[in-house]
Amino acid sequence: MTVEHENFARKRRQTREVRIGKVPVGGESPVCLQSMTSTYTHDIDATVAQITRLAAAGCDVVRVAVPDRKDTAALPEIIRQSPIPVIADVHFRYQRALEAVAAGAHKIRLNPGNIKDRRQVNEVIRACRDAGIPIRVGVNEGSVVERQDRAVRASEQEQLARGRDHNLVQLMIRKLEEYIRIFEENDFADVVLAAKSPDPVVVIEAYRAISQRFDYPLHLGVTHAGPPETGRVRSIAALATLLAEGIGDTIRISYAADPIHEVEDGKELLCSLKLRCRTEPELIACPTCGRIEVDLFKLVTEVRHKLATIRAPIKVAVMGCVVNGPGEAEGADVAVFAGKGRGVIYVQGEQVRTVTEAEMLDALYEEAVAFAERVKRGEARLSGDEVAINPPKAKPRP
Amino acid sequence: MTVEHENFARKRRQTREVRIGKVPVGGESPVCLQSMTSTYTHDIDATVAQITRLAAAGCDVVRVAVPDRKDTAALPEIIRQSPIPVIADVHFRYQRALEAVAAGAHKIRLNPGNIKDRRQVNEVIRACRDAGIPIRVGVNEGSVVERQDRAVRASEQEQLARGRDHNLVQLMIRKLEEYIRIFEENDFADVVLAAKSPDPVVVIEAYRAISQRFDYPLHLGVTHAGPPETGRVRSIAALATLLAEGIGDTIRISYAADPIHEVEDGKELLCSLKLRCRTEPELIACPTCGRIEVDLFKLVTEVRHKLATIRAPIKVAVMGCVVNGPGEAEGADVAVFAGKGRGVIYVQGEQVRTVTEAEMLDALYEEAVAFAERVKRGEARLSGDEVAINPPKAKPRP
Repeated sequence: MTVEHENFARKRRQTREVRIGKVPVGGESPVCLQSMTSTYTHDIDATVAQITRLAAAGCDVVRVAVPDRKDTAALPEIIRQSPIPVIADVHFRYQRALEAVAAGAHKIRLNPGNIKDRRQVNEVIRACRDAGIPIRVGVNEGSVVERQDRAVRASEQEQLARGRDHNLVQLMIRKLEEYIRIFEENDFADVVLAAKSPDPVVVIEAYRAISQRFDYPLHLGVTHAGPPETGRVRSIAALATLLAEGIGDTIRISYAADPIHEVEDGKELLCSLKLRCRTEPELIACPTCGRIEVDLFKLVTEVRHKLATIRAPIKVAVMGCVVNGPGEAEGADVAVFAGKGRGVIYVQGEQVRTVTEAEMLDALYEEAVAFAERVKRGEARLSGDEVAINPPKAKPRP
Repeated sequence: MTVEHENFARKRRQTREVRIGKVPVGGESPVCLQSMTSTYTHDIDATVAQITRLAAAGCDVVRVAVPDRKDTAALPEIIRQSPIPVIADVHFRYQRALEAVAAGAHKIRLNPGNIKDRRQVNEVIRACRDAGIPIRVGVNEGSVVERQDRAVRASEQEQLARGRDHNLVQLMIRKLEEYIRIFEENDFADVVLAAKSPDPVVVIEAYRAISQRFDYPLHLGVTHAGPPETGRVRSIAALATLLAEGIGDTIRISYAADPIHEVEDGKELLCSLKLRCRTEPELIACPTCGRIEVDLFKLVTEVRHKLATIRAPIKVAVMGCVVNGPGEAEGADVAVFAGKGRGVIYVQGEQVRTVTEAEMLDALYEEAVAFAERVKRGEARLSGDEVAINPPKAKPRP
């Protein structure tokens, strides 16, 4: 994996390491990006096809639901064809877990709360220990908080909201601790913890509390976040906040849409926080305003699609006004500063061409391809590799 | 404004208060959501139409660019028709600022770095003081960091990345301090500060540093974040992290698309972090997986559109499997738990109807409308108003 630790990584909370197949999670490992298939697992071709797409988009490990015997029966072939490790998501029936372990699953997700017979849970733990694979132990607000626990009301709005979230978090952690004891009684420490809620504030507070109590690696996620338009914001808000605090060893963004978008958003989040190296072009652009003299939305969309063929983390800027345009254009590897009817193309801060509006897209793309080639040949360095070192001349005032 | 402080708000960093027209920013005020028009400001009808849409979507104040005399000439009429306060974005020409103040603008955005004559900056400050309006003083990485400052290179990758970001932040803060001194020398404290970059990590580190040095209110933003697909993630990642740390008094999310989306995302972010009360339905939904037995994406999209007519912050759940479905359905105000060919409709945790798949959408909508009406008449309370109080039976283990 082309992943590295920078700023935030340095402050990451120390956890134990587990391994999901070839992918380490926790410890010194980079934050692992995961998703879940939305196909029927017993449909091997559809499932493998979706996993392959998710992997190509940057997904490190993938989870599949195995509600039925026919789903676990499909697992060996899915695992054989999958380019990334496969996690079996088990609920209610412990046999599915045993079958998944036997099928070669790289990790089991288990909610001990919905397998009522403790001996069955113990049997799954033994099977995972024998196979040397970890178990994710998760609680979801929806599955642990009983209706009656929600019943008491308070009068004062502000106290109430604070109290509600705080109490939900306490209920979730109590349940999680109960589950963890089962694993500890079995001397099984190969676990990853999760505590999800649809409420980003509950998620943030729950993981903060858990990270102070346990050193197991943490799987972050906002569950049932909703449609993509709002679910994306809820997921990113909670996960970014936690990751920036050094909390989180593997993440899943989830909302009601094709999981490929979850992976794209997750990858962008990790790259944005410098918890993962970019391997593809980074596009920056004006948001546009009343100063703009060109159809920038259209140009940005076209540039984005064109750049998708380039496999190098070059920084490309599409700027449309004189306020920040020249500065951003100079700071990028390749840029266009688009004015009325013409555009100036920059490469590493130097103006290299002036072209007509109609030529801008192709000219920018040509220079981007050429620059990426020069980087590959070692003839140029990325702007992100440069450092502003001129030391402050005066000490900043306190 | 229907905005309140809860969890995070309690930890918010204390700042001075300024007023943008009727909207307070900083101090005890709720986080203010702003956007910027993408129309030509001199096109009064188009600009007012866009402002009206942005305001209806939840935008508290709006910024317009005034590059030319004809733009400031349009300001009085725009301000007269605008339902929200209007900020004039000024660059290069101090006359535009003076004209905007005379036109009744509620705030001026000024970058003293691009008005070279100090006497001109002083004149704008005097005009704003006389008019009693604040000035936003901003630095952008692109406009303050000179090419030569980016030149020196380091050998070790990790040190380098750390050094680069750190040095960029130092350069930005040095420049901002230089600007602030101009205002302090004029005894003008009615300022809002901003320090933007396209890099979320630079934004986070810059605002953290600024919040420790100054008590002026802060305007948060990631600039030139790019196309919506990636720009949204970059903006939310930085702003959520800062807001969760109590930093930020007004926010703008910006990316290259219709600003209505910026406002929608910004509102969802503030609601997600409980820095703003919801006034509309909150939709939670399964992300779907191999357990699902219904076309949930389609149902969620349809439900989302139907709910848009309801003006009450009811919590609606669309769930598709037995793992978390019943729990989430019980926790919501109105819910459908959709299985093969049929759906169970819940209202406040009680199963009220079982309907066919074809009837689910209408049945859910009917119950949602009816419930919202009961809330308005004071006959029902929102689930979000309830508290889980059952006290922990055992003290959580340390």
